[in-house]
Amino acid sequence: MSMETEVHRVAPPPYRSTLQKLKTRLKETFFSDDPLRQFKGQNFKTKSILGAQYIFPILEWGPKYSFKLFKSDIVSGLTIASLAIPQGISYAKLANLPPIVGLYSSFVPPLIYAVLGSSRDLAVGPVSIASLIMGSMIRQEVSPIKDPILFLQLAFSSTFFAGLFQASLGFLRLGFIIDFLSKATLIGFMAGAAIIVSLQQLKSLLGITHFTKKMGIVPVLSSVFHNTHESANFQLVTKLVSFLFLTRRVVLMQGMRKPKLFWVSAGAPLLTVILSTLLVFALKAQNHGISVIGKLQEGLNPPSWNMLHFHDSYIGLVMKTGLVTGIISLTEGIAVGRTFAALKNYQVDGNKEMIAIGLMNIVGSSTSCYVTTGAFSRSAVNHNAGCKTAVSNIVMAVTVMVTLLFLMPLFQYTPNVVLGAIIITAVIGLIDVPAACQIWKIDKFDFLVMLCAFLGVLFISVQNGLAIAVGISILKLLLQITRPKTVMLGNIPGTDIYRDLHHYKEAIGVPGFLILSIEAPINFANSTYLKERITRWIQEYESEDQNVKKQSGLKFVILDLSAVSGLDTNGVSFFKDLRMALEKKNLKLVLVNPLGEVIEKLQRADDSKELARPDCLFLTVGEAVASLLSTVKSSNYV
Amino acid sequence: MSMETEVHRVAPPPYRSTLQKLKTRLKETFFSDDPLRQFKGQNFKTKSILGAQYIFPILEWGPKYSFKLFKSDIVSGLTIASLAIPQGISYAKLANLPPIVGLYSSFVPPLIYAVLGSSRDLAVGPVSIASLIMGSMIRQEVSPIKDPILFLQLAFSSTFFAGLFQASLGFLRLGFIIDFLSKATLIGFMAGAAIIVSLQQLKSLLGITHFTKKMGIVPVLSSVFHNTHESANFQLVTKLVSFLFLTRRVVLMQGMRKPKLFWVSAGAPLLTVILSTLLVFALKAQNHGISVIGKLQEGLNPPSWNMLHFHDSYIGLVMKTGLVTGIISLTEGIAVGRTFAALKNYQVDGNKEMIAIGLMNIVGSSTSCYVTTGAFSRSAVNHNAGCKTAVSNIVMAVTVMVTLLFLMPLFQYTPNVVLGAIIITAVIGLIDVPAACQIWKIDKFDFLVMLCAFLGVLFISVQNGLAIAVGISILKLLLQITRPKTVMLGNIPGTDIYRDLHHYKEAIGVPGFLILSIEAPINFANSTYLKERITRWIQEYESEDQNVKKQSGLKFVILDLSAVSGLDTNGVSFFKDLRMALEKKNLKLVLVNPLGEVIEKLQRADDSKELARPDCLFLTVGEAVASLLSTVKSSNYV
Repeated sequence: MSMETEVHRVAPPPYRSTLQKLKTRLKETFFSDDPLRQFKGQNFKTKSILGAQYIFPILEWGPKYSFKLFKSDIVSGLTIASLAIPQGISYAKLANLPPIVGLYSSFVPPLIYAVLGSSRDLAVGPVSIASLIMGSMIRQEVSPIKDPILFLQLAFSSTFFAGLFQASLGFLRLGFIIDFLSKATLIGFMAGAAIIVSLQQLKSLLGITHFTKKMGIVPVLSSVFHNTHESANFQLVTKLVSFLFLTRRVVLMQGMRKPKLFWVSAGAPLLTVILSTLLVFALKAQNHGISVIGKLQEGLNPPSWNMLHFHDSYIGLVMKTGLVTGIISLTEGIAVGRTFAALKNYQVDGNKEMIAIGLMNIVGSSTSCYVTTGAFSRSAVNHNAGCKTAVSNIVMAVTVMVTLLFLMPLFQYTPNVVLGAIIITAVIGLIDVPAACQIWKIDKFDFLVMLCAFLGVLFISVQNGLAIAVGISILKLLLQITRPKTVMLGNIPGTDIYRDLHHYKEAIGVPGFLILSIEAPINFANSTYLKERITRWIQEYESEDQNVKKQSGLKFVILDLSAVSGLDTNGVSFFKDLRMALEKKNLKLVLVNPLGEVIEKLQRADDSKELARPDCLFLTVGEAVASLLSTVKSSNYV
Repeated sequence: MSMETEVHRVAPPPYRSTLQKLKTRLKETFFSDDPLRQFKGQNFKTKSILGAQYIFPILEWGPKYSFKLFKSDIVSGLTIASLAIPQGISYAKLANLPPIVGLYSSFVPPLIYAVLGSSRDLAVGPVSIASLIMGSMIRQEVSPIKDPILFLQLAFSSTFFAGLFQASLGFLRLGFIIDFLSKATLIGFMAGAAIIVSLQQLKSLLGITHFTKKMGIVPVLSSVFHNTHESANFQLVTKLVSFLFLTRRVVLMQGMRKPKLFWVSAGAPLLTVILSTLLVFALKAQNHGISVIGKLQEGLNPPSWNMLHFHDSYIGLVMKTGLVTGIISLTEGIAVGRTFAALKNYQVDGNKEMIAIGLMNIVGSSTSCYVTTGAFSRSAVNHNAGCKTAVSNIVMAVTVMVTLLFLMPLFQYTPNVVLGAIIITAVIGLIDVPAACQIWKIDKFDFLVMLCAFLGVLFISVQNGLAIAVGISILKLLLQITRPKTVMLGNIPGTDIYRDLHHYKEAIGVPGFLILSIEAPINFANSTYLKERITRWIQEYESEDQNVKKQSGLKFVILDLSAVSGLDTNGVSFFKDLRMALEKKNLKLVLVNPLGEVIEKLQRADDSKELARPDCLFLTVGEAVASLLSTVKSSNYV
């Protein structure tokens, strides 16, 4: 052990008033990205330009937009449109809404996102899981078959609240709320939802007419088993189309692995729709029991603000649905945006994205659109197709517009079974088995959380499964705080480094010293535990001492506080109580490297200044041990 | 900076299987006090004796009990009995129960606690706040005046559930749940409840007959103002007794300050009861509008197990009431036990105490007792009167028994106004203004929590006020995790110590190095924030570099992970993403002193072993900087 005689003082932190501290704290909590940084030190004109660009990112990249970029965007825009049209129709059916609402939702929201959004790769439109949740939550109270108008009104109202909630999160800079959906939760949730969505499609795939209205895996499977004898008359065609779907699925899998083949997977849904529609039209299959979409009205989105419901008995349902679908679709949109931003090495501002997605849903709700966000599968296709800016969304919207205006009659004979197949193909990709294996490898508890989300969604309900998983994740955080790690340190010979005795086998304890490192802020949730744990540690040390009949005896308890980032009133009492208890045993409590906040609170609480006395306060464990050893020796010699 | 050439390797932690880790984790969470420690290495006989002593602490101190101890215990036991009798009657009235139930509750539970409990100072019996909560929660659904039998049945059933819940917490070793009631929460809650309780007493103090049934401060005060004109006929006597109470109150305050005078405060309630009863009896005041207790039945506790209700429509109410009163009374009992144990330097086992209090309530519920615990005021008197063991509780119980058997007629003329006075005197002591000031001084956020508890109890309801305060406390913990402290470190000249640049003004940054210390486990709730925060830190470093036209340039980002006590799958992704992002900027990510769990997870997750490469991993910041500087220099020279 190096016997350094020089001892460095622990300095009190520089004085800051409560207001200053509050400001820093609030800034770090709500403005951790320092959004106004770029405005500093600019003149008014630059400031207003920057401000306008901040609100409308299109003003930032728009002026630099070139024909070369447009060529890339038009290709990717047409590609995602070919996906968006069949998916839009399918997802609207998943939400129990008229198919055309899915197309409406692929027209207005992408245009708004192109103006407000900061991601270059996000392909905006309806997504499977939010559609599923919205459909199932509203259906719990209103039947989409008996009351289609009311159902549609509630869907638009929910979309409005989803948008309002999303935009509020962004405006109030509470974006970190979506961080509470951990990776493990999302993977489990997505997989469960994908299975639920797929099972729902068994209805159209198997041509069952009496299908359960519940979402759980148990009622759906029993419904399937009780109905397989039904509608056998035209199962041949059903199977044919299923086969078509399966080959497409194989191509898609290939396409995922070989990025150049992605065109096949991107074009396949539209191709399947066209082929199957032609087939049905040619064979007049709609007369033989194959259900088809039917006549769709031509024309652009009708206004729907008169359909928003805010003052009737469904307000609770609408707000709840808006909250759940809002947070789920927001999470998907932000995660997708961040993923591709990281790939292309640009920044996506979470709070700004929330405002963009929120406003797009608010506007959407009054133009006959239901809840939309950035879809993962279509964004991946967009990225692979070489999109450069949000113009690809505009191209897609224009393509959908043309479809709405002129091509609607073509969909009349599209069989519903194809839509089911498209949904299944899209959602099956959400089941991420390798990621689940990786989670198992890294963190068993996270795997448990994932499993809870998965099983909860399958057997309880989509929203409760999610709530359970989030609850368990938060419980784990709280448990970690309640039982913070405390390790016993020892000296690594030949140095003045002190490390965990259990981890570094070469480290050795210093006789007469109990050196503990506390690895968490000390607060009400753990102060009792820490006090009892440290007391027990001292008892163990003393009983070990007795066993080996050593009489050196424990003299000092050193607490390394480097990792104690905070303290509350219970934490302050912990130190006071501990010092009192140690004094009764004739032990000295020594604190090492307390951080600013800890020093400050100890000083303020402790009128006698006993805790923050200079001879009880050291900057490093090494210096504390060296200094205390020398005082012991000198007192022994005298 | 000392240019140490020796570099110490970061060792991987010793291998432990998942099962071993799980075992350690579970042990630390649920058996952190290692209750079986004393059984280790003992023979069977000793083990069975120790086991019996563990379950019944009376076997531990009983055999050593002496006459000398008994002398102390009989004095303190009689003293607390003189408090327990009037308080028992008063608190039962507070809970809208027949006054005699309060005496029953001061007889059976203390006897059971004497056998099972491990505190030597706890005085067991009904307490004000639990009485208030039980009374108000049950009264929300059942009227104690219209349906007294049902009300009593529900009170006993709630007591049963409270006991069941308390004992379960102990058996399941979930005692840490009560730690979530922080000091600040309790102080605010107690003060609010004390005011609510006092206001309720205005009914009997002012002799109001039409009093509100609500608990909030607003309805009570409006009730008082609307009724002050009422019952003026005998306000004189009321005022007389109030005056008596006030003088007693002054003596009590004196007694608190001068411990020798505590006899006065301890005996005063009984004295007041006797004097006022004599006064009423002599003046025949009960005929002039002064309400008195009335006839009480003589005899010991009748059995009440036939009154427990488990299968009717009130089961929800009963369980909720049991849960809330159970946790509140448990918190009070444990806190009181720990306080006096610390004063006398003995240990109280939280989980064992919970089992003792729980069993005492379960037995109590079938012997006509309502919820009881260790009362703070009576335990303080017990301690001051020199109690040595739980025998003082037995003495108290015997005194109550004698009262129940022979002295009940004496209480017939005791005026209710005196009971109100006794309650107010007892609860007013719960308003701890100095503690509130201390909290304001130490921690402003804790003060806010306290205020929420206080105002919530006053203006919303007792149980919701408590729930709000606990919710805010937990929210603060979560916010701390979401926004962990990250500080930039600099070198303290002449040493290889690195400390916070903002705290230690003498510390200086090392050119070309960005040294950050992360002060929390990295998990789903903060990985996004940390990534963005570190990215911004790098940007700021680079833009500062540009401002001073230095071309030294940032080369290394060092993360000091000493305080990162854990990692989940999102945390692992954080490191992977960060390394990728830094590589794109040509920066090297260096990790310093990762703890066992962190190293292990990084190694397991990272197939290419890029993150845990030896040249990216150092034991101290000093060694990392020295070693990296020398590699840069050698590569420059070559």
